[in-house]
Amino acid sequence: MHMKNWNLADEELTKAVRASFQGADSDRMQLVFDSLVRHLHGFIRETEITEEEWLAGIDFLTRAGHITDDKRQEFVLLSDILGVSMLVIGMNNRKPTRATESTVFGPFFVPGSPRYENGDDLGKGAPGTPCIVRGLVSSTAGHPLVGARVDVWQADEDGMYDVQYAHLSEPRGRGHLFTERDGRFWFRTIRPEAYPIPTDGPAGDLLRASGREAMRPAHIHFRIEARGFETLITHVFAAGDPFLDSDAVFGVKRSLVAPFVESELDGETVAELDFEFVLVPS
Amino acid sequence: MHMKNWNLADEELTKAVRASFQGADSDRMQLVFDSLVRHLHGFIRETEITEEEWLAGIDFLTRAGHITDDKRQEFVLLSDILGVSMLVIGMNNRKPTRATESTVFGPFFVPGSPRYENGDDLGKGAPGTPCIVRGLVSSTAGHPLVGARVDVWQADEDGMYDVQYAHLSEPRGRGHLFTERDGRFWFRTIRPEAYPIPTDGPAGDLLRASGREAMRPAHIHFRIEARGFETLITHVFAAGDPFLDSDAVFGVKRSLVAPFVESELDGETVAELDFEFVLVPS
Repeated sequence: MHMKNWNLADEELTKAVRASFQGADSDRMQLVFDSLVRHLHGFIRETEITEEEWLAGIDFLTRAGHITDDKRQEFVLLSDILGVSMLVIGMNNRKPTRATESTVFGPFFVPGSPRYENGDDLGKGAPGTPCIVRGLVSSTAGHPLVGARVDVWQADEDGMYDVQYAHLSEPRGRGHLFTERDGRFWFRTIRPEAYPIPTDGPAGDLLRASGREAMRPAHIHFRIEARGFETLITHVFAAGDPFLDSDAVFGVKRSLVAPFVESELDGETVAELDFEFVLVPS
Repeated sequence: MHMKNWNLADEELTKAVRASFQGADSDRMQLVFDSLVRHLHGFIRETEITEEEWLAGIDFLTRAGHITDDKRQEFVLLSDILGVSMLVIGMNNRKPTRATESTVFGPFFVPGSPRYENGDDLGKGAPGTPCIVRGLVSSTAGHPLVGARVDVWQADEDGMYDVQYAHLSEPRGRGHLFTERDGRFWFRTIRPEAYPIPTDGPAGDLLRASGREAMRPAHIHFRIEARGFETLITHVFAAGDPFLDSDAVFGVKRSLVAPFVESELDGETVAELDFEFVLVPS
């Protein structure tokens, strides 16, 4: 009998917490916190979280905070592996059918990358199979976009980004270039390989405890900016990669998978990627 | 038309994230993360969190992590002001009608407090109105509990706990004693006063932005441990305190409010509190 009354007390608590946000600075803030409290309390009520589990949750968040610094963002990583990042990106980047889809930005972008000319080698000696990338940047109306800025960054054949090495003298597998009059850009680099996200923190603990892969399928990052169009942040994933169905951060979209076609050139294996990037007018 | 497909894609994402926890170490872990993902995605979908808001959330959690150390626990504070702590405590401490209710533990408990005899002064010179506290510890069956350990900690008239002062040579307003043969304990101290929770971190930012009080109504903390009974962690709140209806951490239960009765004794004002603590057999 008293149990029923106590459950009522829990509901009253939730109401009181929701009411406490009625004086929020903005309607938007009130709406967000009202929803947050309802869902947070709903989660706790539904699972009947124990005091020990609550303490483990506090400890988990504390460790995530303490491992986070200028170079490591564990909360972004947690958002990624819980599918939150992709959900936010998906909701905020709904596009017409022809447009290239967006995916996660990831933690390895560095502002102010070196400028290259079309045809240059962005790999700069990074280990890996030589690769030629040819892109076309166009509008949803089908017109090529001239002078669009294309930022590129990628891992090498060891699954490492340049910034993960301690002592590189210059960026590697990273740079920006501009599209020519026909909307095309092209560069040489190395073929990217699959790699694990950092697993030495709470995100890694979570993946291990849930028997999940830490791997991301091989991909090249692109950020394409053209005047009058929405900036596109995306990847192109390598077709056939064994981790396409189990990307640790749920970033794969079928439309972003393309073949890195391998052939022999002067006795050397070379991979070639062709991809069209379609931007939406802003 | 394509919008509908995209919403479907969001739902598919949520399904994929839920499915990723199917290999969890335990059924309990799978259940907890399944619920967490559903509620977290539900919150984001319902509020249509923007990329800017998402970034603000990441920054908020990062700041909470960085201000947290051995003495400051911002994630507990956030749990407190979102009513999460009280919800967890309420769900895990459902009690028979007569039993004394639990409330938040708070961040100011220190293990290994000094031992006192009944009648001693726990105030140890802390500033405040002299106060006499008399307690009775009994079982839900109505029997006095002999030799129960009673831990006490409280703020002074400036709303400060001893651990918040930089250079105190000994604990003040903090100690433990044991119940006598009739289940009674009593001690001298000073009357506690209302105080604000720490507001120099993200929790304070949240309270300010939502127009909420940071104040907690005046109270004394009790932790009562008796063999064969569930340990009781609670407060006794001062009747008439102006913040009883707006406790920043939602910790007030009507049954825990009692008068600190003031009277003149030898020309000095003295407050007196009497309270019965009823424990549940374990």
